[in-house]
Amino acid sequence: MPRYKLTIEYDGTPYSGWQKQTEAPSVQSVVEASCTHFMNASETVEVVCAGRTDAGVHARGQVVHVDFAEAREPYAIVRGLNALMMDAPIAVISAEEVADDFSARFNATKRHYLYRIINRRARLGLDATRAWHVYQPLDIERMREAAALLIGNHDFTSFRSGACQAKSPIKTLDTLEIKTREKNPEQVMIYTSARSFLHHQVRNMVGTLVYVGMGKWSVADVAAALEAKDRREGGPMAPAHGLYLMRVEY
Amino acid sequence: MPRYKLTIEYDGTPYSGWQKQTEAPSVQSVVEASCTHFMNASETVEVVCAGRTDAGVHARGQVVHVDFAEAREPYAIVRGLNALMMDAPIAVISAEEVADDFSARFNATKRHYLYRIINRRARLGLDATRAWHVYQPLDIERMREAAALLIGNHDFTSFRSGACQAKSPIKTLDTLEIKTREKNPEQVMIYTSARSFLHHQVRNMVGTLVYVGMGKWSVADVAAALEAKDRREGGPMAPAHGLYLMRVEY
Repeated sequence: MPRYKLTIEYDGTPYSGWQKQTEAPSVQSVVEASCTHFMNASETVEVVCAGRTDAGVHARGQVVHVDFAEAREPYAIVRGLNALMMDAPIAVISAEEVADDFSARFNATKRHYLYRIINRRARLGLDATRAWHVYQPLDIERMREAAALLIGNHDFTSFRSGACQAKSPIKTLDTLEIKTREKNPEQVMIYTSARSFLHHQVRNMVGTLVYVGMGKWSVADVAAALEAKDRREGGPMAPAHGLYLMRVEY
Repeated sequence: MPRYKLTIEYDGTPYSGWQKQTEAPSVQSVVEASCTHFMNASETVEVVCAGRTDAGVHARGQVVHVDFAEAREPYAIVRGLNALMMDAPIAVISAEEVADDFSARFNATKRHYLYRIINRRARLGLDATRAWHVYQPLDIERMREAAALLIGNHDFTSFRSGACQAKSPIKTLDTLEIKTREKNPEQVMIYTSARSFLHHQVRNMVGTLVYVGMGKWSVADVAAALEAKDRREGGPMAPAHGLYLMRVEY
């Protein structure tokens, strides 16, 4: 069976997250229904993703692999799957045939996330489901100092969800960069990348950096939290809807 | 009665446009309901806007004026109105007291719009309601040449809706700039500004520029269309959902 790598974009708002659940609609269930229909298969055609996004998290470049019973032209796959998902805010951006041992999950060498914050007093209209609204002023320079402490190889237990299934809490964080633009100073973009992340690690790091930006925590508090290796010592978790899975490298 | 100037952001997707209609929900009807409730008024508190956006058009910085029966602190107005619109993708960003002869509509000296295009083969997931999906490759340099012809003082009859109520079709177009960014080359941003625009002028200009970008029209065809002063000679109208009213100057 030929295996394909698909790159997928979605608005996570209406979904219970990537992962299939019995009750709520998930991104995976919509994509699998489309693949199943496309292949005219009697059993569900399963897809495996690079990053299982939580409910409300968006993707610009989620990657999955899927095995089809028959070979198809990559662009015919893009068009065919998209035509079957017309009503969903999910789009297949590209498809390519890959080796039959390629894994979207295990072969990923780098995952890139963006976390978007809108920092202003008034609530959000256009971005209500697409950015975290932080109304207290943020000290971006102090957030950058705190972010620098987290880069590199660390035990990230303090930034890990209780439900995290990773064997080791030790990860290497390659990037944690906070960007603002003069033309739109309200918007704070936090870019982060690593080979892999623990469950909720990005949201917990962002929540912690925002605590620093608000002045609730010092930069030293972040160092102490990291050192503690205890989730109860970590900062709060940022909401899902500011997070975007941007790109996966292989 | 004190008069206030409000700056408003909204997602135009669920609305029939700015303007009140008997049937469909409009941005104006939601904002007026909020103002009426806020003032505890027995009759609808009416608001007057700078730019009556069409169904599906978004705003980052729509401006309105409204008269309240009693004075209120500007920030109390922002919070109070927003609290009454919690379920709507509409937010009041700022409020300020203005002279009682201030008109959001007639005192505007410049209106700034952005038109967002995503230029790629695959359909849109995250931006389906927030950008125009153009799948044919666009020649940006030729679009820029055509745009240059439209800047300045012209009779824009060829780019005007049949329903346009403006007395004169002569307008001065200050800016019509096409920007792309190396980091996200799919996205084409068209920025335009003028003291005022004719009805559908921005969407008709954008549709025409896209015709040029696709190679369906030459730059000379745009010059001829402008010269014709006849809507039937103008290019097609771009869809509403790529358009954003960004800012109004006074």
